[in-house]
Amino acid sequence: MDCIFCQIIERNAPAEILYETDTVISFLDILPVNFGHTLVVPKGHFRDLTEVPQEIIGDLFSIVKRLSPVIIGAVQAEGFNIIGNNGSAAGQTVFHCHIHIIPRYHEDKTRFRRPQFLQYNNGSFSEYGRNLRASIQKEASTWKEK
Amino acid sequence: MDCIFCQIIERNAPAEILYETDTVISFLDILPVNFGHTLVVPKGHFRDLTEVPQEIIGDLFSIVKRLSPVIIGAVQAEGFNIIGNNGSAAGQTVFHCHIHIIPRYHEDKTRFRRPQFLQYNNGSFSEYGRNLRASIQKEASTWKEK
Repeated sequence: MDCIFCQIIERNAPAEILYETDTVISFLDILPVNFGHTLVVPKGHFRDLTEVPQEIIGDLFSIVKRLSPVIIGAVQAEGFNIIGNNGSAAGQTVFHCHIHIIPRYHEDKTRFRRPQFLQYNNGSFSEYGRNLRASIQKEASTWKEK
Repeated sequence: MDCIFCQIIERNAPAEILYETDTVISFLDILPVNFGHTLVVPKGHFRDLTEVPQEIIGDLFSIVKRLSPVIIGAVQAEGFNIIGNNGSAAGQTVFHCHIHIIPRYHEDKTRFRRPQFLQYNNGSFSEYGRNLRASIQKEASTWKEK
């Protein structure tokens, strides 16, 4: 495997590993938006979130939720983003699913923005709603959530 | 309650609701980064991710994972971000925890960037690692994950 995250998991590449369980590992991002910027990563090699098995999702985000306030407290941040980039169009650069925990400060000048937000015109808001509900409905019959 | 998301959940405010379970609801963001931009929201009123009980985390992100590929397929996006903003310093504006599913396209000019990434200098990378591991270790004794 030439996946850098798999190499980190196997201890074949250096990393500042912060925490791990049987299914999830967490280490510092080497290109931090702010210091303490951390990645939470399923140990299995899944390209993006859509490939992560449903039974690992709870493990992954439990760790995100556990670690976030500890990291934010340790670096004395004022808030945090959790971000998952899925696909190169979304800014994903390492194709092994990972969730960013990014400590944030009011004055850090970080922005997630397109030049301007779009607006739904005329009936298009309810039309998007109708179409998406129909697409979801088709899939949802295979889901177990009640 | 004057929380707009609680009002949506109670059907006291309009929304394009896409999907819901006993614990989670999903509806269109009215200020989309791209059309189909969706919010996934725990029905309980929790200020941010740190307040969401551990037993709801799996429900919440299971739905994020289920809905993302369906939405992306329906709007023919090329990728997607999942984003949670926690605290005003992180861009949170509605203080009822919500996760964004944002359809993305290579040409949409959206960026999540500070003016430049920081760099860890000298020994500071391993020092951050050491300090964060110590902070996490103190908390982790109360966690159940193995």
